[in-house]
Amino acid sequence: MTLIAKVETARYRVPLPVPLSDSTHGTMRHFDLITARIRDKDGAEGVGYTVTMTGGAAVHALLKEDYAPLLTGLDAGRPEAVWHKLYWHAHYAARGGIGGLALAAADIACWDLKAARAGEPLWRHLGGHDPKVMAYAGGVDLHLTPEELVAQTQGNLERGFRAIKAKVGRPKLSEDIERIAALREFVGDGFPLMVDANMGWRPDQAVTAARRLRDFDLVWLEEPTQPEDIAGHVRIAEQGGIAIATGENFHLLSEFHDFIAAGAVQFPEPDVTTCGGITVFMKVAKLAEAANLPVTSHGAHDLTVHLLAATPNKSYLEAHGFGLDAYVADPLTLDSEGRATAPDRPGHGILFDWAGLEPLRVG
Amino acid sequence: MTLIAKVETARYRVPLPVPLSDSTHGTMRHFDLITARIRDKDGAEGVGYTVTMTGGAAVHALLKEDYAPLLTGLDAGRPEAVWHKLYWHAHYAARGGIGGLALAAADIACWDLKAARAGEPLWRHLGGHDPKVMAYAGGVDLHLTPEELVAQTQGNLERGFRAIKAKVGRPKLSEDIERIAALREFVGDGFPLMVDANMGWRPDQAVTAARRLRDFDLVWLEEPTQPEDIAGHVRIAEQGGIAIATGENFHLLSEFHDFIAAGAVQFPEPDVTTCGGITVFMKVAKLAEAANLPVTSHGAHDLTVHLLAATPNKSYLEAHGFGLDAYVADPLTLDSEGRATAPDRPGHGILFDWAGLEPLRVG
Repeated sequence: MTLIAKVETARYRVPLPVPLSDSTHGTMRHFDLITARIRDKDGAEGVGYTVTMTGGAAVHALLKEDYAPLLTGLDAGRPEAVWHKLYWHAHYAARGGIGGLALAAADIACWDLKAARAGEPLWRHLGGHDPKVMAYAGGVDLHLTPEELVAQTQGNLERGFRAIKAKVGRPKLSEDIERIAALREFVGDGFPLMVDANMGWRPDQAVTAARRLRDFDLVWLEEPTQPEDIAGHVRIAEQGGIAIATGENFHLLSEFHDFIAAGAVQFPEPDVTTCGGITVFMKVAKLAEAANLPVTSHGAHDLTVHLLAATPNKSYLEAHGFGLDAYVADPLTLDSEGRATAPDRPGHGILFDWAGLEPLRVG
Repeated sequence: MTLIAKVETARYRVPLPVPLSDSTHGTMRHFDLITARIRDKDGAEGVGYTVTMTGGAAVHALLKEDYAPLLTGLDAGRPEAVWHKLYWHAHYAARGGIGGLALAAADIACWDLKAARAGEPLWRHLGGHDPKVMAYAGGVDLHLTPEELVAQTQGNLERGFRAIKAKVGRPKLSEDIERIAALREFVGDGFPLMVDANMGWRPDQAVTAARRLRDFDLVWLEEPTQPEDIAGHVRIAEQGGIAIATGENFHLLSEFHDFIAAGAVQFPEPDVTTCGGITVFMKVAKLAEAANLPVTSHGAHDLTVHLLAATPNKSYLEAHGFGLDAYVADPLTLDSEGRATAPDRPGHGILFDWAGLEPLRVG
């Protein structure tokens, strides 16, 4: 039994080393890290977390006021039971956004503790397919000129990446085409490239853009339009002739189900820190497998590398640490083929620099 | 111009006069009231609010930390612009639950101020169809025996109600049937009766229950199953042979759209305090009208009476004040035909007892 004896939550405001921008979110200068630390009666610890640019106070309030009091006394070794108790407790107000993030922090802590108590790294605990996961560099780079984009890509190649994603959704489609053309020319034929529109287009605009972009042999077009529009995504995939990735804005398993069932997504892309945690992420991975689809990921690469390593239908791992790398021991590294390796430390093995984070604490 | 010069938010924990229970939420003893008060530079005030049993701290955190700072300087006379600015600001974390509630408080305050500055009651400002709205008593009464249910109904008839809703979803279907049979016998043939399962059933259970319940000539079966399951609702409606109401757990316009488009709901039932506010509620009402469907409502009857009064395809207004009636001047009254009347005071005209609420303030 891994009964939860103690729960601590915290919220940190972490500055970004470099401000970021995309077509929807404007300029971002910092992000919130919200953590859940649980201990069982033997003092073993599980750590969960989520990150967001906005809404962090609400995520922490839900975690601290609604979920944390319920966690004490529950068995972290039964994450399905914990998840359902928390989910239904605050279902009326919290179904979807905020709830998906706060639940993730609690759920990740349970899985971390459970795997650690079993003496296993998380990727083995969840099924252990293959610890090597192909990574891609997810640039937040809509503001860069073609030259700057190429320079950024040069840096990413030097860091070991063998797959690259760039943002699209500039005011003029010709600017997008110019940037992606420069990128393709620079990396050469056959190098895996993806693009991400961050919901910036209407479906008709996305179809037009996809028809131009497909000349560049892209792995996927990500979030071409708003995350509610199943029919729109089907249209973009079919008329645009390009594979669609989406899911970072989904907070419910049913959203993945509905998109997959309709053929509206070819690369389901859950974010473990926003979709409700590991419990939901792994169901999405298996749902994709059943539908003959790969699964990719958004965010939290230190954790997600375990989830994709556990999964036979894994696709690319998004590597994008925001500013978190500076507060984590042993951040992700890549081998000569651009692959990350899920670590063999017990649990997820992510070691936060709690002392370093303390000055950034805001809740 | 009704530029917002000042924003105040608050959270109150209001005790319920009598504890309530249903098939999903267990026993509830209090609820949170979260308010947004905005003032323009002339000192005119708009008041918005939302209510919830759980997640109230998160709703208030989102409203106070993310939305309130954005509101200052915006024009309350352009609620569409305000809504979109707030929605997209926190979209990543807050799309759906929590977001829908916090947005509602801000949006309602804008519409209140806008209508008041126009010198109109809200129901006229929104289109002014007919101020008389048929109400029903929404009992939260799953724990009551058939005899207690009849006694409660007797009280509701004496209070002027000419339509009644009761909870279903007891451990045995026979208990539900017994209770609804007693209710139908008591109120007589032709009296409008609804039942509400609060998502307590699987679709197959709901079909079985609907086939038994339809003998009692019900207006609708509400929330037979979980709010994500479009195909399940279609099956229940078609195989159960009973009209379905749902929507109190929807937080996005698209959820109403998808249910309506699929024939999964016959009585769309938005809650203005959880769906994102008046801006969204009125779109749901018009979407229903376009689809030849009535619109009903959940919660916040003092406000919702205006919205249904503005709407030609109005159905029943749910009257259920929780404990809020004690803190509102001139609570809803019914005429001899069981109809509520939208008041002719400017704006929504809801006057909160701020002094009385102050001792209940928790944020």
